[in-house]
Amino acid sequence: MSTPPEPHPNVRETAHRIAEMDVRGAAAIADAAAAALGVQAAESDADSSEAFQAALHAAARELHDTRPTAVSLPNALRYVLSGLDGGDGDVEALRRTVERRVARFQAGLDAAQDRLGGIGAGRFTDGDVVMTHCHSTDAIACIEHAVDSGVELEAVVKETRPRNQGHITARQLRELGVPVTLIVDNAAHRFMNDVDHLLVGADSIAADGSVINKIGTAGLAVSARDRGVPIIVAAQSIKLDPRTLTGAAVTIEERDPEEVIDAGTRAEIGEIGVANPAFDVTPPRHVDAIVTEHGQFPPESVVVLMRELFGNGISEPWESV
Amino acid sequence: MSTPPEPHPNVRETAHRIAEMDVRGAAAIADAAAAALGVQAAESDADSSEAFQAALHAAARELHDTRPTAVSLPNALRYVLSGLDGGDGDVEALRRTVERRVARFQAGLDAAQDRLGGIGAGRFTDGDVVMTHCHSTDAIACIEHAVDSGVELEAVVKETRPRNQGHITARQLRELGVPVTLIVDNAAHRFMNDVDHLLVGADSIAADGSVINKIGTAGLAVSARDRGVPIIVAAQSIKLDPRTLTGAAVTIEERDPEEVIDAGTRAEIGEIGVANPAFDVTPPRHVDAIVTEHGQFPPESVVVLMRELFGNGISEPWESV
Amino acid sequence: MSTPPEPHPNVRETAHRIAEMDVRGAAAIADAAAAALGVQAAESDADSSEAFQAALHAAARELHDTRPTAVSLPNALRYVLSGLDGGDGDVEALRRTVERRVARFQAGLDAAQDRLGGIGAGRFTDGDVVMTHCHSTDAIACIEHAVDSGVELEAVVKETRPRNQGHITARQLRELGVPVTLIVDNAAHRFMNDVDHLLVGADSIAADGSVINKIGTAGLAVSARDRGVPIIVAAQSIKLDPRTLTGAAVTIEERDPEEVIDAGTRAEIGEIGVANPAFDVTPPRHVDAIVTEHGQFPPESVVVLMRELFGNGISEPWESV
Amino acid sequence: MSTPPEPHPNVRETAHRIAEMDVRGAAAIADAAAAALGVQAAESDADSSEAFQAALHAAARELHDTRPTAVSLPNALRYVLSGLDGGDGDVEALRRTVERRVARFQAGLDAAQDRLGGIGAGRFTDGDVVMTHCHSTDAIACIEHAVDSGVELEAVVKETRPRNQGHITARQLRELGVPVTLIVDNAAHRFMNDVDHLLVGADSIAADGSVINKIGTAGLAVSARDRGVPIIVAAQSIKLDPRTLTGAAVTIEERDPEEVIDAGTRAEIGEIGVANPAFDVTPPRHVDAIVTEHGQFPPESVVVLMRELFGNGISEPWESV
Amino acid sequence: MSTPPEPHPNVRETAHRIAEMDVRGAAAIADAAAAALGVQAAESDADSSEAFQAALHAAARELHDTRPTAVSLPNALRYVLSGLDGGDGDVEALRRTVERRVARFQAGLDAAQDRLGGIGAGRFTDGDVVMTHCHSTDAIACIEHAVDSGVELEAVVKETRPRNQGHITARQLRELGVPVTLIVDNAAHRFMNDVDHLLVGADSIAADGSVINKIGTAGLAVSARDRGVPIIVAAQSIKLDPRTLTGAAVTIEERDPEEVIDAGTRAEIGEIGVANPAFDVTPPRHVDAIVTEHGQFPPESVVVLMRELFGNGISEPWESV
Amino acid sequence: MSTPPEPHPNVRETAHRIAEMDVRGAAAIADAAAAALGVQAAESDADSSEAFQAALHAAARELHDTRPTAVSLPNALRYVLSGLDGGDGDVEALRRTVERRVARFQAGLDAAQDRLGGIGAGRFTDGDVVMTHCHSTDAIACIEHAVDSGVELEAVVKETRPRNQGHITARQLRELGVPVTLIVDNAAHRFMNDVDHLLVGADSIAADGSVINKIGTAGLAVSARDRGVPIIVAAQSIKLDPRTLTGAAVTIEERDPEEVIDAGTRAEIGEIGVANPAFDVTPPRHVDAIVTEHGQFPPESVVVLMRELFGNGISEPWESV
Repeated sequence: MSTPPEPHPNVRETAHRIAEMDVRGAAAIADAAAAALGVQAAESDADSSEAFQAALHAAARELHDTRPTAVSLPNALRYVLSGLDGGDGDVEALRRTVERRVARFQAGLDAAQDRLGGIGAGRFTDGDVVMTHCHSTDAIACIEHAVDSGVELEAVVKETRPRNQGHITARQLRELGVPVTLIVDNAAHRFMNDVDHLLVGADSIAADGSVINKIGTAGLAVSARDRGVPIIVAAQSIKLDPRTLTGAAVTIEERDPEEVIDAGTRAEIGEIGVANPAFDVTPPRHVDAIVTEHGQFPPESVVVLMRELFGNGISEPWESV
Repeated sequence: MSTPPEPHPNVRETAHRIAEMDVRGAAAIADAAAAALGVQAAESDADSSEAFQAALHAAARELHDTRPTAVSLPNALRYVLSGLDGGDGDVEALRRTVERRVARFQAGLDAAQDRLGGIGAGRFTDGDVVMTHCHSTDAIACIEHAVDSGVELEAVVKETRPRNQGHITARQLRELGVPVTLIVDNAAHRFMNDVDHLLVGADSIAADGSVINKIGTAGLAVSARDRGVPIIVAAQSIKLDPRTLTGAAVTIEERDPEEVIDAGTRAEIGEIGVANPAFDVTPPRHVDAIVTEHGQFPPESVVVLMRELFGNGISEPWESV
Repeated sequence: MSTPPEPHPNVRETAHRIAEMDVRGAAAIADAAAAALGVQAAESDADSSEAFQAALHAAARELHDTRPTAVSLPNALRYVLSGLDGGDGDVEALRRTVERRVARFQAGLDAAQDRLGGIGAGRFTDGDVVMTHCHSTDAIACIEHAVDSGVELEAVVKETRPRNQGHITARQLRELGVPVTLIVDNAAHRFMNDVDHLLVGADSIAADGSVINKIGTAGLAVSARDRGVPIIVAAQSIKLDPRTLTGAAVTIEERDPEEVIDAGTRAEIGEIGVANPAFDVTPPRHVDAIVTEHGQFPPESVVVLMRELFGNGISEPWESV
Repeated sequence: MSTPPEPHPNVRETAHRIAEMDVRGAAAIADAAAAALGVQAAESDADSSEAFQAALHAAARELHDTRPTAVSLPNALRYVLSGLDGGDGDVEALRRTVERRVARFQAGLDAAQDRLGGIGAGRFTDGDVVMTHCHSTDAIACIEHAVDSGVELEAVVKETRPRNQGHITARQLRELGVPVTLIVDNAAHRFMNDVDHLLVGADSIAADGSVINKIGTAGLAVSARDRGVPIIVAAQSIKLDPRTLTGAAVTIEERDPEEVIDAGTRAEIGEIGVANPAFDVTPPRHVDAIVTEHGQFPPESVVVLMRELFGNGISEPWESV
Repeated sequence: MSTPPEPHPNVRETAHRIAEMDVRGAAAIADAAAAALGVQAAESDADSSEAFQAALHAAARELHDTRPTAVSLPNALRYVLSGLDGGDGDVEALRRTVERRVARFQAGLDAAQDRLGGIGAGRFTDGDVVMTHCHSTDAIACIEHAVDSGVELEAVVKETRPRNQGHITARQLRELGVPVTLIVDNAAHRFMNDVDHLLVGADSIAADGSVINKIGTAGLAVSARDRGVPIIVAAQSIKLDPRTLTGAAVTIEERDPEEVIDAGTRAEIGEIGVANPAFDVTPPRHVDAIVTEHGQFPPESVVVLMRELFGNGISEPWESV
Repeated sequence: MSTPPEPHPNVRETAHRIAEMDVRGAAAIADAAAAALGVQAAESDADSSEAFQAALHAAARELHDTRPTAVSLPNALRYVLSGLDGGDGDVEALRRTVERRVARFQAGLDAAQDRLGGIGAGRFTDGDVVMTHCHSTDAIACIEHAVDSGVELEAVVKETRPRNQGHITARQLRELGVPVTLIVDNAAHRFMNDVDHLLVGADSIAADGSVINKIGTAGLAVSARDRGVPIIVAAQSIKLDPRTLTGAAVTIEERDPEEVIDAGTRAEIGEIGVANPAFDVTPPRHVDAIVTEHGQFPPESVVVLMRELFGNGISEPWESV
């Protein structure tokens, strides 16, 4: 195997900014990565399609390795590179393909949350009560669209220990004019009978339809099933995690124990362990629909959308160099 | 109907102390009330069994009306008065019966938590991991007995928002030498697979086998069922609520919203409602065993123990005057 | 075995009236049968306790054999005769015992529906919506008591094919001032989310806690479980069927096919079978509480009440001659 | 935006006939709409591909607006128009494409029920008992194919209040020689143990895999799950509702209360509400397979077929003008 | 505490024979132990009721300690000794009481299986198919009674690895004329749809309603629930284990690995562990009825029968000396 | 219809060798059949694309009819022939297409188990305990890959009566260094709490997501669900059975009763039936993921992969001649 070509300086720069967290947030990272591939394509001086592809793959690999656990980053790369599959055209044709896919990806990204909100809003009718967990801009977008169309909703907002992101949700829903009842997480099951929908976001969604989301989601979904309340997950397609096609077990981040208990109180109790997993995994049989900007899907079918958008190969394109 | 007789001064005094909360806690209240009935019986100058019974009923009514919502108070009264049922003996015989029942009730009360602990401990074996919710001295007694018999246990302790009674549980378990992992309530479902028992206390237990306990219990039990983890409730028999034989819906106390969110933070969010129910209701099909000082029972059978101890009438004896 | 003694003419007369259906309805039959045993006891000229018992057993057998499938009839007989168990007193003592039990049984019967109504009413709170199936005076009594105490209820009334007894329920609920929505049976699951309680009566209740009730109850209970709606059965204790202690399979009456389809329409369709079972069997795990005049019980515990009231022997007393 | 072009007179005429219900039934409507688009394409005098597409879109919009709630109508339009996607050919090429898709759609429609019947029949084996709900020609087609292949089946036919379409099903099954037992809807759960399959049709099928069908289906499916009976839905692909990709809540038609109770009987009862929803919604987890003319699918995968046939866009093509 | 009195030689002799396993089988051991207490009572020369009771308790303790894990032995002792509870009569009265209880216990034991068989038979109707697991004479008795009453049954008999006791069941059912289909344990779920009842015996039954029975029962019960097949446990009351009132965890016997795999085959495979637990524990929610000689009970109520027969104390009478 | 063309001698020879079982095993059969089609294509002297296609179809039919029930055989044929769909190119183009698809199929087949193993391994983490049923090289491949990557696993191996293939699994796992505990099938539910994954292979997988596998799988999956243990099926894509798109009921092979019981023992028992079905059917709701060489899929989505690989037609290509 020959030495992979040096990526374009813009790629290197973008990779650096992602690594340094100058670029943050799933959408921003994806957008920057796609743009960098676009620059690589536009300014490549490769003289054969093989060389062109190798350059793109090398650029993708450099970008990917900055934040290998971010979900949206490889999705952006896979989306753009899937334009090269089976491409036996000349360099110019490949270049145009890549540029077109970059543009389409960025446009989709821009419009995604708005489209998703419109789709999720379709599930609500006047007078519905929605329970939320944590804070998700995708979930909020669904409620906002409904409110904008004149649907009257109420919300039961779980505070979502340990970081109380429910407070953010409560504030944003109030700004939309939605009446909010704030509860502790422990009170969720008691309020389940008064609720018409459970609406949550997602950190990522696996090929087997599992939803990885803020700790507490999995138990909440079990509780909703017990009461017959539908469970909706709002998640843009950049949250789909094609790496899980390979069965890759999702690693759950363990966060600072101080979020759970401050050091002083902890010391008073005595020598205890504190566990603070950030996420949990909800199996697809406990989810009714995943709302994306491409429509709503049963969780068991989301693998189809994943392969359609990001390719159906089980290996990453940038690994093939 | 004639004017009910004036209760003994000691009864009046006891009633006053209960009403003023000089006597507090389920066991202390029950003990004091039984003792007062004993004084009433011992010093009654009734000259007929009818008059004697009327005096006792009046005393019971006075005691009962001080705290009509406490579970243990009517239980004490019912237990003692059930000695009068069908009693067609003379005054002296009735007096002795009442005194005997007072003594037996008080002795039982003294020994109850210890006996219950011994019984609950029987369910644990070496190496088991126990998850707790809130803080219950009855539940702790089960673990303490097990530890005292040399059984090695570990505990996963939910912090139990909004009042974090899990911290008390954690401290007491540490004092027993039990390794403790503290988690937020949201993390319970994630840890369910690592847990061998869910062990909780009870505020009260209804005739239909429902368990009224700290908010969060009902959802936790659903989560445990989903993973096949047995659910044990530790509750002395004074927690059995015979009033629920009459289908009386349990009223769930609504507590101060400041427990959920402080006023400052709340004001920042905007105008929101805050709900803070203190308890919830777990149906018997989500409970495996209720451990009392009289043995362990399936929740569906606890009504039998309730009627055995506190009488099977659907009206309260002190209402019959 | 000697010839059983000739029963008292009043017994014979009562048996005849029951057989001819001059006496109808579970309560009326039970009342008449108990009264006849009372006459037999009062006017017996037996000169030994053995002869007295034999006379009572013979009377009971004669009464029982008139309508061997009625539930309330053997209950009345068992209740009264259980006073003879272990009775080694003289004839006068036995006579008094029987008379006392007859009186108590009749008084209980008179008061039962009212007491039961008061108990069942306890489960409802203001604003609750109750779904009913078929028509049950015991169930209506629960709603009536609640309404009389000022609780505001609404009802969703299933028409209950094939005989549309839901129309009777609707009328009686309207007379109580309860707002009624009438639906076809097929619409029940759709309305389950809007309903707080499912309230039905019972034809009889078996020792294993199964509820035998109007066809459609068993499926409705499954539907309620799916949505987390509590299922309440209102049934006086004369509906408890102690014969089922012996595992006796309940025979489900097959009614006239014309209730399902008139002959003309049937002929047009062609040669079809028509099945019209009157009842079905709901297992105890699909019932939350059975409300009787002695209190509410989990279905799994009702066998205890059954044995307490009607004796715990597995053979009928009148078979022992 | 310019004025949309005037549709072809044939389109206008077809739209009128659909609006006036001269054309009725899902298949007939779909067939007529596709044909009209074919005429529009054949006779269009557009001189650019843009103009051609605009004409087609305008024609589609006119057809669509006649009966915006019919499922099959937009499917026909989407199917035909999806031939234009990415079509940058000349007018003649586009015309041919449209004509080919019209022909294929119509041919598919003609053959659909027969093919579907052959597929559904594959699930039955000799001696099976099938329970039906309501009347569905797609469901009947499955049974007919099985019978034609010599498979012996029996049927338990629910009458299906309020309109007793079960009678039609019974008659058609008798014509096929299938032994039929007619029951009231309430008896379904009781017969579930004797049944090998539950077979129903569908009014429409949503992107989340939910089945919208005659009121009573959802509860029946819950009942079948409780007994382990497989639940099969027979539905041609024109019943797939791609509008639900957007989460659009299905509106359930409320029908005439006189279907539930005639005015005279109602007046006798007193002032009651009557609710008569025509359909209900069965979630995919309560369905085992959806049988279409393209094969059988788990309900969770039907969204894939929906997108394959009718396009994966979340906006309607005729809205894009 | 004084030295406990020396038991009667007959007690000592019986204890020896039980310890040496000259007396074997649950019923035989219970019978012998009760008889020995009878001799102790009859021939005691105690001159006070205290001394008499002490003698009986000492005898019970001696008998009990021979086989502390047998279920039926303490039951016999508890049953007989419960006659002494609250007995403040003179020695002669106590003696008569004990003798009467011994006689009643022995008579009950003799008749138990036959009575139980009659009760269990009541659940079967003509044409039913019964699935069995392992071999239980109590279960066989139910089928035998049904067959003797002319009910036609068929059986699906699981071979019940590792010891193939299903072969014994098959032989005995054939002797009763019942058609038998023998299957491997793995085939049970596949045949569940063809089966009307699951009928098993029990090794013992705990106060929480759990059924301890031959390994495989617990999974089989889960499988039956999945298909809606009722699960019946046939168990004489001597199988009720009152020690479990104290929560005592049931220890599951680990049997010889050679039952699972012979040493030669094992050696060929390589160094493997082999686990061979003899029993497992089925929770009460997976059992429909427990059939005893005192009637059938929901598993959740069997604790009531346990306390009625064997006393409701949580300590053993022979421990109180 | 004209006489179908005579297939190439190599096709005939291959068909013969498959029929005679000289070629055995799903992969070998598929490989041979694809190769034969390749020869047919390479050496065809057809002079029109129609003739070429007819020749290929005839060859496919001849190959197919040798073993019409093998799953992998039609998959190989469908995979190769799907290259002809819509192929209106000339003979040379078609020939090249077929040759390319043959090559790709064979290459995929070679690599499939290894790729699948890598994917399945992704689900395991250090310290996991895996329960197996029967013997599956695909399942073993998953464990092998995990072990090779340094993941420490333990296994609970069910012996899998009647043929004890668990012994083979045990031996192979020992060769991989995995600690093994062998149990009888009846003990599976008891060990379920100690297990992190249930891992099985598949005989075939139907379009509705059902998994056909060794008898015992379906009940085991129910047991795993009861305890919350994830259920993984490892199956190469040649196990997908596109014939089931047509609803074709899977016929379960009935094997020799001597596997269940030897003739001598059987004779001793008396005249009994013995049933020995080789497989059972696990519904998709009891499976969490199907691991293929193309990635892992929820069972409900596997139909999409099936159609992608083997064509979405409901009729077989070789039937179209």
